[in-house]
Amino acid sequence: MNNQRIARVTAHMKKVGLEQILVTSTTSLYYLTGYWVEPHERMIALWLTVDGKATLFGNEIFGLSSTPELPFVSHKDGEDPVAALAGAIKPGKLGIDKFWYSKFLIGLMAHRPDLTPVHGSDPVDETRKYKDEEECAAMRRASAINDQVIAAAAAAVTEGVRENQLAALVNREFLAHGADCEGTQLVCFGPNGADPHHSGDATVLRPGDSIIFDIFTPISRYWCDMTRTFFYKSVSDEQRRVYELVRKANEAAEAAVRPGVPLFRLDAIARDIITEGGYGPFFTHRLGHGCGIDCHEPPDVSGASDAVCRPGMVFSIEPGIYLPGKFGVRIEDLVMVTEDGCEVLNKYPKELQVIP
Amino acid sequence: MNNQRIARVTAHMKKVGLEQILVTSTTSLYYLTGYWVEPHERMIALWLTVDGKATLFGNEIFGLSSTPELPFVSHKDGEDPVAALAGAIKPGKLGIDKFWYSKFLIGLMAHRPDLTPVHGSDPVDETRKYKDEEECAAMRRASAINDQVIAAAAAAVTEGVRENQLAALVNREFLAHGADCEGTQLVCFGPNGADPHHSGDATVLRPGDSIIFDIFTPISRYWCDMTRTFFYKSVSDEQRRVYELVRKANEAAEAAVRPGVPLFRLDAIARDIITEGGYGPFFTHRLGHGCGIDCHEPPDVSGASDAVCRPGMVFSIEPGIYLPGKFGVRIEDLVMVTEDGCEVLNKYPKELQVIP
Repeated sequence: MNNQRIARVTAHMKKVGLEQILVTSTTSLYYLTGYWVEPHERMIALWLTVDGKATLFGNEIFGLSSTPELPFVSHKDGEDPVAALAGAIKPGKLGIDKFWYSKFLIGLMAHRPDLTPVHGSDPVDETRKYKDEEECAAMRRASAINDQVIAAAAAAVTEGVRENQLAALVNREFLAHGADCEGTQLVCFGPNGADPHHSGDATVLRPGDSIIFDIFTPISRYWCDMTRTFFYKSVSDEQRRVYELVRKANEAAEAAVRPGVPLFRLDAIARDIITEGGYGPFFTHRLGHGCGIDCHEPPDVSGASDAVCRPGMVFSIEPGIYLPGKFGVRIEDLVMVTEDGCEVLNKYPKELQVIP
Repeated sequence: MNNQRIARVTAHMKKVGLEQILVTSTTSLYYLTGYWVEPHERMIALWLTVDGKATLFGNEIFGLSSTPELPFVSHKDGEDPVAALAGAIKPGKLGIDKFWYSKFLIGLMAHRPDLTPVHGSDPVDETRKYKDEEECAAMRRASAINDQVIAAAAAAVTEGVRENQLAALVNREFLAHGADCEGTQLVCFGPNGADPHHSGDATVLRPGDSIIFDIFTPISRYWCDMTRTFFYKSVSDEQRRVYELVRKANEAAEAAVRPGVPLFRLDAIARDIITEGGYGPFFTHRLGHGCGIDCHEPPDVSGASDAVCRPGMVFSIEPGIYLPGKFGVRIEDLVMVTEDGCEVLNKYPKELQVIP
């Protein structure tokens, strides 16, 4: 149990008037308990009350055991997975973690019609938004590795290479640097880059193509996530214009990060630059997302965000321009808000590069 | 829309007294509509009423559009994802798909206190248990590819090879045969094989090791899943005894599959053979699981299963013996129940093989 984090969570519970919550996501459980459990279809839930008392309920197959700090109440396959939980919980409002499966909630409500389930992720999500020292160190390490991997990826760009070969190389490099697992790396040549979610397929590189590398992986549980766009053999005037516009948007937004600045302002700063440059309709997504034990986590960095920069927040700044049928450009860094500005975790250069 | 499948689902709805259900899982939506959507944190739900009328609600980012058969009602990021759904649903009982996120259910209940949410996956799960002709063909194709991939994996076993090298080779072979994605292939040498969920790491192969390959992947959306155990350079008397016992259990259970046989009987047949052979406590998991668009889906093949063999069911038969600190043996096939017995989808031989 991480008692400092628990104390921050219970302080939030008080603020939002929640006496008890269930924490059920793999990453939030890891954050609070240090246990990494992927329950798949099985049940796990940490019952946390506002006085800081915690009990873990879950399937015995997870192989956990009770500790003096954290009792573990187990059930077996075939048994009612929420019976013990239903016997423990107090009447009234119960905060429920957002991704808990409905089958468990419906089962719990059948046992306990006196419960009122409400949205219950905020106390942990709010806490997780501000990385502590140990987490900041993990995020710096992961992004430093990402800087090395993107250099290796750029060096592997050659005549005739396919997107999925470069994606596989990125995964191999990440694993060689200690990544927790492989992932779907986004490598996009030419017109494929105009789809922000295109993932590497058998497309072959051609001279004049833009090359987007959007590469990300968890390393010791914390994610890195960076995008760079290169050009192969040559760059057209339009490609150069679009690239410099995206780079300007990225750098201006990053320069504006400091405590007190609302995140919707960052989105607006980047978006205004792209709109003034004439490409507003082609920046089709939000500016960024929080990043930590989940690759995408709060805060949202969009025009609709109600969050404000505070020290310890880590999020992406990733403006892009997508020209259907032609090409795309995206430039993304992770930034960590500091006392007087931000630390850009990705150091790989952003000057326009034409790979010969 | 697959109207034959919808008709089977609504027949089940009548049987269990459900006037309306929400279908939300990626695989069940694909099964009924042909759309493959991975919504991640976003909302998608097919509202199906017992008269066969269906409406799809989801985020516009999924890129779906209305058809004469299936209206699509979209919402945008930042909007209430369940508002339109809440406006449409009828009062009373509403069947909810088991893995729908609680955040959506809680949101829906806040709009509509007149709804009673209940477990609602059974009508689709019951239908999916019995594969139609198109699905049987897909499962045969996937398993025929698995037979080829395991032959390639066995051929790649050499002095000094690491588990994760063989796991990567299995993924490459699957992709070369058209697999939808890579996966975590289970390759276990020697004592690692005593953990039924060990996945390939940097362990190096040594003479005398058992080698478990439990390999699986979706191909055109339908999964294959097979396990074979080999021995490297030599086989001890105990290894041979355990192998032949597991093989006997596998073959006896497969020989017993025919319409009308309860699935708990199959588990008992395999378990009794292993128990009589003196290794009962070391067969630590259920005999098998249904397999289709999900690798693990109903029916359950265990001592607690209440399902009975019927034509069109596809499930695994995978007895194993796990001797901690020593080695493990597992032999797994997928079987498809036919009118008078079963078709074993995996043809790769099960005779004991010592790889020289």
